[in-house]
Amino acid sequence: MTRFIHVALGQLGPIARADTRVQVVARLCEMMREAHACGAHLIVYPELALTTFFPRWYMDSDGEINSFFEREMPSAETLPLFALSRELGVGFYLGYAELTSENGRQVRYNTSILVDRGGTIVGKYRKVHLPGHYEHEPWRRFQHLEKRYFTPGDRFGVTEAFGGKIGMAICNDRRWAETYRVMGLQGVEMVLIGYNTPVHNAPAPAHDDLSLFHNQLSMQAGAYQNGTWVVGVAKAGIEEGVDSIGGSCIIAPSGEVVASCITKGDEVAIARCDLDFCALYKRTTFNFDLHRQPHAYGMIVERKGETLRADGSPLG
Amino acid sequence: MTRFIHVALGQLGPIARADTRVQVVARLCEMMREAHACGAHLIVYPELALTTFFPRWYMDSDGEINSFFEREMPSAETLPLFALSRELGVGFYLGYAELTSENGRQVRYNTSILVDRGGTIVGKYRKVHLPGHYEHEPWRRFQHLEKRYFTPGDRFGVTEAFGGKIGMAICNDRRWAETYRVMGLQGVEMVLIGYNTPVHNAPAPAHDDLSLFHNQLSMQAGAYQNGTWVVGVAKAGIEEGVDSIGGSCIIAPSGEVVASCITKGDEVAIARCDLDFCALYKRTTFNFDLHRQPHAYGMIVERKGETLRADGSPLG
Repeated sequence: MTRFIHVALGQLGPIARADTRVQVVARLCEMMREAHACGAHLIVYPELALTTFFPRWYMDSDGEINSFFEREMPSAETLPLFALSRELGVGFYLGYAELTSENGRQVRYNTSILVDRGGTIVGKYRKVHLPGHYEHEPWRRFQHLEKRYFTPGDRFGVTEAFGGKIGMAICNDRRWAETYRVMGLQGVEMVLIGYNTPVHNAPAPAHDDLSLFHNQLSMQAGAYQNGTWVVGVAKAGIEEGVDSIGGSCIIAPSGEVVASCITKGDEVAIARCDLDFCALYKRTTFNFDLHRQPHAYGMIVERKGETLRADGSPLG
Repeated sequence: MTRFIHVALGQLGPIARADTRVQVVARLCEMMREAHACGAHLIVYPELALTTFFPRWYMDSDGEINSFFEREMPSAETLPLFALSRELGVGFYLGYAELTSENGRQVRYNTSILVDRGGTIVGKYRKVHLPGHYEHEPWRRFQHLEKRYFTPGDRFGVTEAFGGKIGMAICNDRRWAETYRVMGLQGVEMVLIGYNTPVHNAPAPAHDDLSLFHNQLSMQAGAYQNGTWVVGVAKAGIEEGVDSIGGSCIIAPSGEVVASCITKGDEVAIARCDLDFCALYKRTTFNFDLHRQPHAYGMIVERKGETLRADGSPLG
């Protein structure tokens, strides 16, 4: 048996701060047309794909912050992408900043949606692992204020779509083995990940040369150890003076890279992914029901880190 | 600040079924002398390093099974290794089959011990993730009866030794992200892993060509994602007709390989490992106290796999 999804990487080059949603959506639509010409059923776009990566700036004013957020999806500006999706029969995965209201308070998430081949939203995910910091840190060349601007999501989700079990994650989630495992325990067959990763990591500049290696290593290990496809897509290149890695790629459940982008601009690459290939790993080395030993894993949920309990209180 | 451990890989070539403990211990001692000549403080030997890899055979008789197990450590036959350790000031990590008694019943573990530079046992670990199967499966070219011959251990351990926090794991443990994370949450700085990995995996022969890749991928990801050194050591080569991978290596907290064995026989390789290098990752990208989100990880301990709860009962 074989269940193929033809998946396209929809890597984006830089988006300037002055670029409008209309301009960006036109680029996304153009890539969707290219993907369709390559036979794609699904195109995966990066994290926060509708604007520049705004967490690099410290902002105080709610109005300024909210200008980077979407109040509705689709909106007038994003509707053409949904319409084209329906017209071409190409689904998509899209990251954006979500402004919503909970118990009368505004809440902001770093969100992605999965849209099926009929242009309908079938899955939504809010980023769990927000990197960076809360306060303005002027010693950095640029800020990374995701912890300030977003509330973390509360769960990883797996959605039945495209004939399989599709998982959603965003950027820093891909470095955490827990991300893949929680989805692996729900039988995930393809994990979609958009990211914005500056080459320069201010607190750890010694890592900069290894940024592409770490990107691929984390996704390859997540794929292999859970018997799932992983699709990672960058917003790449020099955006508002900050250089971000590319390295968008599609990884098989074997951990092997089967497709990659090779530029740091808007670029489409494609692979034909057999979801039934997952079983080769899920039924053997990574048959969780046979081989996992949760009795020895307690600390993973009991502790946040070396010094804090899960609830944030200090360890004994 | 720097805290160096000079670590030697003590890779073993094949051990025949007829080889005696005395012969094997002589080989281990010879490698310890080589390691000492290279300035090593610690030599890491493989899993089940005192005998041939006996789980490849189905055996019924307790007497026959127990002939591969150690009732005491050190024993008369292994004492020379402890004596040499003390003489040279070289610690070691050694895997062996342990026969013990609990509540009047004999229990068998796949065990490793950590011995300090004074020849004293300072840590002991019993393998948590036993691969393979319980019953004789004649369709296989050779058996892999670890689930039959061993009881799983109940915890991962981190021991203060060699000036740092040393973790212990065995073979199949290295493919499971939980292994590294549970030790990472205890601040582990170097994880020692011995393994026996046949090139041919009977239930999944399609993986055979990727065996070395998967070995290294899992250890590199575990190292990077927990900011720890990882030292993986094989029993390699064609043993009783079964070919096993080599690929012994030392991996830095960056995920980079800093030393490797290049044969499939008895071989020593060495690296000078700075435990303080771990902080570069533990205090930044993988500062668990800042960045982990245990509220989203519950399923990791609640479920064994896609269909079973942690206690082995079926899911809803």
